[in-house]
Amino acid sequence: MTVTLGNRSAIPAPRRGSGVFERARTVTEPAMRAAVDSLPPTTRRAVGYHFGWWDSTGKDRLRTPGTAIRPALVLVAAEAVGGTPVGMAAVAAVPAAIPAAVAVELVHHFAQLREKNSTVSKTFGTSTAVLAGDALLALAFDVLAAQSGSHPGGSTAAHALSTTVALLIEGQASKGLDEGFRTARRRTGALLECSAGLGGLFGGGTPAQIAALRGFGAELGLAIQLVDDQRGIWGAGHPDLRHRRRTLPVVAALASKSATAERLAEAYQKSLSDVEARELAAALDADGWRDWCVAESARHLRAALDQLEPGITAERRQDLRAIARLVGDRDR
Amino acid sequence: MTVTLGNRSAIPAPRRGSGVFERARTVTEPAMRAAVDSLPPTTRRAVGYHFGWWDSTGKDRLRTPGTAIRPALVLVAAEAVGGTPVGMAAVAAVPAAIPAAVAVELVHHFAQLREKNSTVSKTFGTSTAVLAGDALLALAFDVLAAQSGSHPGGSTAAHALSTTVALLIEGQASKGLDEGFRTARRRTGALLECSAGLGGLFGGGTPAQIAALRGFGAELGLAIQLVDDQRGIWGAGHPDLRHRRRTLPVVAALASKSATAERLAEAYQKSLSDVEARELAAALDADGWRDWCVAESARHLRAALDQLEPGITAERRQDLRAIARLVGDRDR
Repeated sequence: MTVTLGNRSAIPAPRRGSGVFERARTVTEPAMRAAVDSLPPTTRRAVGYHFGWWDSTGKDRLRTPGTAIRPALVLVAAEAVGGTPVGMAAVAAVPAAIPAAVAVELVHHFAQLREKNSTVSKTFGTSTAVLAGDALLALAFDVLAAQSGSHPGGSTAAHALSTTVALLIEGQASKGLDEGFRTARRRTGALLECSAGLGGLFGGGTPAQIAALRGFGAELGLAIQLVDDQRGIWGAGHPDLRHRRRTLPVVAALASKSATAERLAEAYQKSLSDVEARELAAALDADGWRDWCVAESARHLRAALDQLEPGITAERRQDLRAIARLVGDRDR
Repeated sequence: MTVTLGNRSAIPAPRRGSGVFERARTVTEPAMRAAVDSLPPTTRRAVGYHFGWWDSTGKDRLRTPGTAIRPALVLVAAEAVGGTPVGMAAVAAVPAAIPAAVAVELVHHFAQLREKNSTVSKTFGTSTAVLAGDALLALAFDVLAAQSGSHPGGSTAAHALSTTVALLIEGQASKGLDEGFRTARRRTGALLECSAGLGGLFGGGTPAQIAALRGFGAELGLAIQLVDDQRGIWGAGHPDLRHRRRTLPVVAALASKSATAERLAEAYQKSLSDVEARELAAALDADGWRDWCVAESARHLRAALDQLEPGITAERRQDLRAIARLVGDRDR
């Protein structure tokens, strides 16, 4: 069973002072809890365990909250196009955008549950992980419809989310083909693009503004993916090399037809030892592929911000910049 | 990998002259094709193969159309509460109910793709089957929202469908526990209940009428399940006994504490040979469990029809009766 989908650990850890993420968590977590509480007991337990709310027996446990980059993107995008936040400063958000923020996070976790080695899969078995993912996917559309069904953009939103799910799936289903770039774009990028677009939609943005926000999300997704790809090759254990993953830098290096490319192609024919992976990572670094990752990531970040002009005023770009900056900081 | 969900072959084969089913197929299939055509290529191919539209290479193939009992139930329920069909006689349907008819059929096929031995699973592997199921689940909500998003019942419908998916999943996730009745009711019954209820909703029914239709669907589901359970024990190969499935008659027989019950309990501890399964089936028949299935199925069919009074006039009950009759005929 090798259902693998979504990104491994592409999302940066939360940073102190990044208020947009804390706000997004504060706004969306009660709705997430309410949605999960509506599930029947067995599924609910697996899902709560996946979220880290409960241990495998269903007891509450302390945990480090997730980054909530996708919900943050939805909420910040809604404000960027002029949607007026309601509530106290710490939890203020554009009300119409909150269901979408919850929905994209549920779809993200659906994708995580499709990973070969998800925690639920290890603890409860693959069947339970698949079924828990099913539950989150259905919940995502339910949440979107329940609170935004009367919104004129409701059906557009459901279609955008469905199309994104189809892209996430297709990225996985088509794996094995040598299409690293397309797969990566579909994985992280598709959901971030959808998040930013839904924020724009429920914030009342114009079609041009929504398109700009989608472009921002897609480029941001690629930037994050490149940071993650870099870690996968040169980070502890060189997991992407060990698992012979055709990530963006690997595909680019293979296409370079250098001596290292030949070595890489040969290594990917068989399994790699720890030592071989370390040596290969060093060779790729010496050839400049690590710098390439940094530069490419920075380029996509700039492209992300470029998308926002001229559709969104400088003042309203602030929080979107804060999200982009988080990725940039991690990139150094 | 043992993701198994939905019903195996619970739905009777189409019969000549059962106009409601032909009409349902005619109305829903173009929309199903359009929905599937919107999928990216790899997923689309797996889904089209699952529907029997194409062979494994994507070529068109001739096939026997499915029964479309769920779409028929949606459409007939919509008319039963007064929704006015539009179109020519052969394809007339209540327009607002068509997306729901497509959506429940997509959810049914999602459930089929979760079966351990689905055709897609055998041909393309379990991962592809899981991902194709994901695609159909997302499409179901998309179709429902796209065409009925502006309908006042749109969010109610999405919630009903999501709850049904959760029940289908939970029925599977909780398997292994000895709760045959609850699992069965959740499996076939939940989706038929949802189908009839959505028809009532989009046909403009009153809450009482919608509740009556849901009751009809739930009872019909149990009646069909009992027919299927009967086949599973006494049909060719005695598949349910061979697979030691705790179907309704098995659970009931085990609870009877007869000599056969002891034999059954003992047999379910180990694997059964063909001969043992045949002998056990004969013993269960001699004890009256086959008759019990027939009687219970008939009882649930009567209960299904009883649900319709007094909320739905006798004249408007005709097509619902036709659907129930199909099950009854098969029961003999």
